[in-house]
Amino acid sequence: MVRVGIINVTGYAGAELARLLHVHPEARLSAVSGRSAAGKPLAEVFPHLACHDLTIGEEVGDVDFVFSALPHAASAEALAPLVRAGVPVVDISADFRLRDPQEYAQWYGVEHPAPELLPQAAYGLTELNREAVRSSRLIANPGCYPTSALLALAPAVKEGIISPEVIVDSKSGISGAGRSLGLTYHFAEADESVSAYGLAGHRHLPEIVQELAAMWPRAGATEPPRPKVTFTPHLIPMSRGILSTCYAPLAAGKVSSGEETREVYREFYKGEPFVRVVDSPPATKQVSGSNMCLVYPTVDPRTERLVVVSVIDNLVKGAAGQAIQNMNAMLGLPETAGLEAPAVYP
Amino acid sequence: MVRVGIINVTGYAGAELARLLHVHPEARLSAVSGRSAAGKPLAEVFPHLACHDLTIGEEVGDVDFVFSALPHAASAEALAPLVRAGVPVVDISADFRLRDPQEYAQWYGVEHPAPELLPQAAYGLTELNREAVRSSRLIANPGCYPTSALLALAPAVKEGIISPEVIVDSKSGISGAGRSLGLTYHFAEADESVSAYGLAGHRHLPEIVQELAAMWPRAGATEPPRPKVTFTPHLIPMSRGILSTCYAPLAAGKVSSGEETREVYREFYKGEPFVRVVDSPPATKQVSGSNMCLVYPTVDPRTERLVVVSVIDNLVKGAAGQAIQNMNAMLGLPETAGLEAPAVYP
Amino acid sequence: MVRVGIINVTGYAGAELARLLHVHPEARLSAVSGRSAAGKPLAEVFPHLACHDLTIGEEVGDVDFVFSALPHAASAEALAPLVRAGVPVVDISADFRLRDPQEYAQWYGVEHPAPELLPQAAYGLTELNREAVRSSRLIANPGCYPTSALLALAPAVKEGIISPEVIVDSKSGISGAGRSLGLTYHFAEADESVSAYGLAGHRHLPEIVQELAAMWPRAGATEPPRPKVTFTPHLIPMSRGILSTCYAPLAAGKVSSGEETREVYREFYKGEPFVRVVDSPPATKQVSGSNMCLVYPTVDPRTERLVVVSVIDNLVKGAAGQAIQNMNAMLGLPETAGLEAPAVYP
Amino acid sequence: MVRVGIINVTGYAGAELARLLHVHPEARLSAVSGRSAAGKPLAEVFPHLACHDLTIGEEVGDVDFVFSALPHAASAEALAPLVRAGVPVVDISADFRLRDPQEYAQWYGVEHPAPELLPQAAYGLTELNREAVRSSRLIANPGCYPTSALLALAPAVKEGIISPEVIVDSKSGISGAGRSLGLTYHFAEADESVSAYGLAGHRHLPEIVQELAAMWPRAGATEPPRPKVTFTPHLIPMSRGILSTCYAPLAAGKVSSGEETREVYREFYKGEPFVRVVDSPPATKQVSGSNMCLVYPTVDPRTERLVVVSVIDNLVKGAAGQAIQNMNAMLGLPETAGLEAPAVYP
Repeated sequence: MVRVGIINVTGYAGAELARLLHVHPEARLSAVSGRSAAGKPLAEVFPHLACHDLTIGEEVGDVDFVFSALPHAASAEALAPLVRAGVPVVDISADFRLRDPQEYAQWYGVEHPAPELLPQAAYGLTELNREAVRSSRLIANPGCYPTSALLALAPAVKEGIISPEVIVDSKSGISGAGRSLGLTYHFAEADESVSAYGLAGHRHLPEIVQELAAMWPRAGATEPPRPKVTFTPHLIPMSRGILSTCYAPLAAGKVSSGEETREVYREFYKGEPFVRVVDSPPATKQVSGSNMCLVYPTVDPRTERLVVVSVIDNLVKGAAGQAIQNMNAMLGLPETAGLEAPAVYP
Repeated sequence: MVRVGIINVTGYAGAELARLLHVHPEARLSAVSGRSAAGKPLAEVFPHLACHDLTIGEEVGDVDFVFSALPHAASAEALAPLVRAGVPVVDISADFRLRDPQEYAQWYGVEHPAPELLPQAAYGLTELNREAVRSSRLIANPGCYPTSALLALAPAVKEGIISPEVIVDSKSGISGAGRSLGLTYHFAEADESVSAYGLAGHRHLPEIVQELAAMWPRAGATEPPRPKVTFTPHLIPMSRGILSTCYAPLAAGKVSSGEETREVYREFYKGEPFVRVVDSPPATKQVSGSNMCLVYPTVDPRTERLVVVSVIDNLVKGAAGQAIQNMNAMLGLPETAGLEAPAVYP
Repeated sequence: MVRVGIINVTGYAGAELARLLHVHPEARLSAVSGRSAAGKPLAEVFPHLACHDLTIGEEVGDVDFVFSALPHAASAEALAPLVRAGVPVVDISADFRLRDPQEYAQWYGVEHPAPELLPQAAYGLTELNREAVRSSRLIANPGCYPTSALLALAPAVKEGIISPEVIVDSKSGISGAGRSLGLTYHFAEADESVSAYGLAGHRHLPEIVQELAAMWPRAGATEPPRPKVTFTPHLIPMSRGILSTCYAPLAAGKVSSGEETREVYREFYKGEPFVRVVDSPPATKQVSGSNMCLVYPTVDPRTERLVVVSVIDNLVKGAAGQAIQNMNAMLGLPETAGLEAPAVYP
Repeated sequence: MVRVGIINVTGYAGAELARLLHVHPEARLSAVSGRSAAGKPLAEVFPHLACHDLTIGEEVGDVDFVFSALPHAASAEALAPLVRAGVPVVDISADFRLRDPQEYAQWYGVEHPAPELLPQAAYGLTELNREAVRSSRLIANPGCYPTSALLALAPAVKEGIISPEVIVDSKSGISGAGRSLGLTYHFAEADESVSAYGLAGHRHLPEIVQELAAMWPRAGATEPPRPKVTFTPHLIPMSRGILSTCYAPLAAGKVSSGEETREVYREFYKGEPFVRVVDSPPATKQVSGSNMCLVYPTVDPRTERLVVVSVIDNLVKGAAGQAIQNMNAMLGLPETAGLEAPAVYP
């Protein structure tokens, strides 16, 4: 059994890791940390985690594998000594996602605490980057919005179906904002309401652009175009789930119908246990609590645009589930280990 | 007092008309019809409407003004004799919105029941079409989605700020689907979930295109471009509210910042009692129960796109409230009569 | 026009007063205060209140009538000088509800700031205490739970239908907890969940007991029994609304069926504009946004118990609406002035 | 591997069985039936169950174990031949819960289809009836409300803590009403609302009374009292979960404080994997998706009443999870097999 530690178990991503690890056949959660709650039983902070007979500590101590669910900057600081000591880690924070430390500084407002580790980090969107994940000891777990957008767009980009004028309109449940308090997340304010935010630039935008740019096909020796992406996240009155609706103009002469496009997508994701191309628009509830991503690509023939709808559970495929999927890939375990439970529906 | 009748009071739009008319200073609800519930007291079908001491009838009989909240086709059939008799009417159905009866037949799957009345009908988006509304006896009350999209885009179109490559991504509460039953609207299915629908073409699309095309500025003698609109509605787990996020490329050299754009919008909507241009992204809850539309236009400088977010209550500004606003305009009453109640928040 | 001031407009009760006063035909909101937000336009704190062109001040200054929506203790302190100066006031806090300052100190943990004013205060459950309200200048506006419980039980108590073994099981929307932050009220924690709280004794319990005791019929010269009340509030994932389910053993020989009981209740509340006895169990949504209380009494013949279900909107009949109803009664205005809007349904 | 069949997989209980069985280490779902959907792939009806590569059939055919999720009457009819053939079954319907076929006829409005099987049936509230469950081939899976009420009250009844004047006030998520359509369950009607129902007598009442009566302690040779139970279910705007608040007068001289009572309860449920006595009032969300029941007993010292709050997921411990727990007990498997996943929180 792999002895696993979670740094900062007291947020939603940390708690979700603990939930999922309880049914992992090859891993055992053996230590959890969290500064504000250190000394408390895990069951006191999260009654649903009483199954783990653990006390929250200051540190995770000697374990075989570490997940960090710390906020950015704090996460890289905490992980750097572990990485140097050879402990395999998955970082759920944003610290190792952007390859350029200057872009990181610009979007996150702090100097990167460990830029020298960036070259070792693999971007852990497992389906799109499996080989790099398998051979790395430091995984940057993708953001929840980028996961939903990139899985929706990757086949279209890689197969040359679209031009690089992309709009990603995302709808997220409120757990995406984390467990800290804010008037926006007060039930009476958020319930029965929907709103847009981050219109001046959300931190997940550069991550989406970086990954889309990296996968854009080159035409001969010329540099591929840098995709022009507008990304608008919205707050939805639900606890979990992200639905992303992605729009891009069709490139000439590739596909002309939704069915044709779904065929391309099905081929692209063939054999993937956690991505399913569906024949009608999916709902976030169909993946709630599970590591699945459902993708529905179609074509608007009136405007010759590709429209792709994808759904994930932001805390599972968008955070803790994908982190475990990455751990599995890193350790040579079956990628589905511990992640086989279907969605909780309804 | 204007004696008002509501045809088909038993759906949400009909009930909402009755709710709003109860506080109208110049109008009195004097008759309501609804076939399935004919003979029942209104208070039995809608306990919140016990304030109206009315029994649901087969017909509305002799009244001064009629609202129809019937489904399409049935509505035009019921209204045609009234229109011919000179009774001023507002039709909440879609029957008189599309000016071309062939387009109507194509989208609604039936021949138009009264195409000869189409030329008399005014499209009742009051803010954008006030003079026509004032002088007409037959108002086509706009669809809920078109209301939110057109109020969001009209200033940009009319001021030449954007090119005609438009994406409208709308999020609607579930009352928009009406009061009839369907598994999609079962609480346990719809709660904690978001989904897209109508991707093959929603009936509100031709309405949006028709009205945007009509307002597109002409450059000299040449025909203006037909806007290319992709419209994707989404179902949100809330009862009321629509938020539309609209995207279009900026036309060269017109505006370059969000603040500048908001200035244009503020000027455009100056003096309008029901449209307010706001300085931060609005939430649907801020208009719940009221006839207000909040509009937040901004610019994505990275991609040179206009992004506009608008919110309305789909049953008020998106249906019954706008219908009363149109009645007020038609009858020479203050446009705000009966519509002054602020939103119910939180 | 009565010039009205609201002390502490920044909470939900304060904002709800401002919402309702906007459509009051005889009163005009002329000043609002709120320490943390002093200097800000009201529309900035509450976009739905942009209809009031007011800036939040430190004090309400010279007005004809004052509502205080301050927390307990602070409220009595702020109101005392106004009461002494002869300004009529309604206190929405708990400060003047309990007649015994020692009981107040015990439940609220502070000495009463103005015990000498207690004898002047009238308990403002208008339907049950109308004459006292009309002749008082200082109204203690009832708590939301007591309003729902007392309206449900008063006819049974006063008509001698029940024995004094009472259980009140209440279900409240989350706005009842106010606008301050707490993990319990975080959307992701409160949504899709129900919980009980206050089991060791909620502050509304002594208020319920005091008022029930006062209305218990005397049998001859002997002191009536002190009712034994267990009160359990629950948090429901909705913004507004309280439903109270009240249980008590039937006294022998008074009523034996639900229909008979409803007849007694109908007679009791005859002519009351805001209390309606209904023939089937009501839903909180049927009163949302309105000042109505729906009451459904019935009998469990298997156990000879009375069961009464009542619903109110906690922010209207449970707070701001009742406060305005009290103002109307105090000033000799029609009690329904400004309170005529039906519930916003659905 | 036990080959399992589910009769009528198309409702929520059936689908939940399929969800849970997918991770059962010793059982494999091998056949599912459902008349209306026969011939369709399970994944078409329930996209979250695509993990089962099954087509819905007319019958479940040759399997080792059968769950029936049919409606009452239909269920007994379908199960009778299987029981006679020696196939072990768990019936999720109400057909074998009431021991008296006349009481069944009275509450369910039909003659019992197989009264001769009633003596063989064990009431499958596993914790309270384990030995009977282990030795039976026909399990009557308890109703969701009775499960929550009986687990809340059993220790108090069996330890003689309370008198038999019991009130059960239950709050249920809307999946409890099943997947069939009704205006009451339309999202726009049910959202933001709470209501009581079944006040004239809910079908779960006789089940609660029967089981409480059976466990009431005998004092010498005299028949124990028949408990007088009032049961009021409420509809809560959430998909899953039941919270029951139970009230009863304390018997003299047994316990006097909440802590003392919790000690009795802890002892009673010692070693039970699915019932946990907690030290603060629980929330339904803490058990969502899991087979756990959290119980919080306390004492109202002012009135000398016991108050117990319990929470379960109505579809898991209240239906499918308990059914699997019963299967495990019947087959000699670890009772927790397939049921180890913690709640999905938040």
